[in-house]
Amino acid sequence: MEAKKKSLEELERLDVEAFKNQEKTAINLVLDDIRSALNVGALFRTSDAFALKHIYLCGITAKPPHKEITKTAIGATHSMDWSYHENIEELLESLRESNTILAIEQTDKSIELQDFHLETMHQKQEICLIVGNEVHGVSEKAISLSDYCIEIPQFGTKHSLNVSVCGGITIWEFWKRLNS
Amino acid sequence: MEAKKKSLEELERLDVEAFKNQEKTAINLVLDDIRSALNVGALFRTSDAFALKHIYLCGITAKPPHKEITKTAIGATHSMDWSYHENIEELLESLRESNTILAIEQTDKSIELQDFHLETMHQKQEICLIVGNEVHGVSEKAISLSDYCIEIPQFGTKHSLNVSVCGGITIWEFWKRLNS
Repeated sequence: MEAKKKSLEELERLDVEAFKNQEKTAINLVLDDIRSALNVGALFRTSDAFALKHIYLCGITAKPPHKEITKTAIGATHSMDWSYHENIEELLESLRESNTILAIEQTDKSIELQDFHLETMHQKQEICLIVGNEVHGVSEKAISLSDYCIEIPQFGTKHSLNVSVCGGITIWEFWKRLNS
Repeated sequence: MEAKKKSLEELERLDVEAFKNQEKTAINLVLDDIRSALNVGALFRTSDAFALKHIYLCGITAKPPHKEITKTAIGATHSMDWSYHENIEELLESLRESNTILAIEQTDKSIELQDFHLETMHQKQEICLIVGNEVHGVSEKAISLSDYCIEIPQFGTKHSLNVSVCGGITIWEFWKRLNS
């Protein structure tokens, strides 16, 4: 096919001020002990792309300013609202009133992402997605405070997806459902 | 909620031999001049998770064995079938007969991912997804040999998603459509 790549201008991206003032996607992202600052940065970049409301960095998760976050976030730490919370349990208790809390984790109660329907969940204003540590996944304490566990089905030899990819797939899927 | 994380045994992942013998998802992935070996590894890991057929590494894309690919692929270079092709045009010409070729790129002819329907495309046996360079995206020559351009809609300040995340979202979306 003949097609012309869009220029930066044609992409019509927002500047930071316009981003902050636009209506956001009703999704909050919680990072539960993410070890790699490169993953934190990539999750900032994806959250910016889908205009999420807020990123909550918890526990050992690295926070800006940080060289490796900057490397993969390429500026999204300035556009995205974020805050740091040492104690994830206190955070989730405070989010519970307005958020349906979803842990992205492979458990005995998990619902596969494609089978999870927004209509069946409690109707709250916002969705809170929790992604967890690269080795240990979402912590037991965060799972215990979640409303549902969601699992991305997998058919390969590895036990999990990279957390940036897992977050990207989940954010995409919920963005799509909120906008269709 | 009360939920127990699945153990490695409970995840029931395949060993490499069983993976190679299982029926694959009818998707091939083409990496067009991917600069970062970490991204190559992450794309191997995602391709393993969704049991894609083949990864084609083209141009300057790093190939196994490579320390940084190993770091993020964590073994998926052994399970996934892959091959290296210096010339992407020759490769795409050879794939054209059995593949609908989709470039994941923001162009003036792009269809947004959520609006692209499998039924409307030529019915070929397999889908070939092309993801491109971290800065320049999919090359003009690869776009010219594609049947469609697909774009992931974005609402932030950055001009694009990380290529591993972009590949993950696209692979997930096509896996889901082929399996629903």
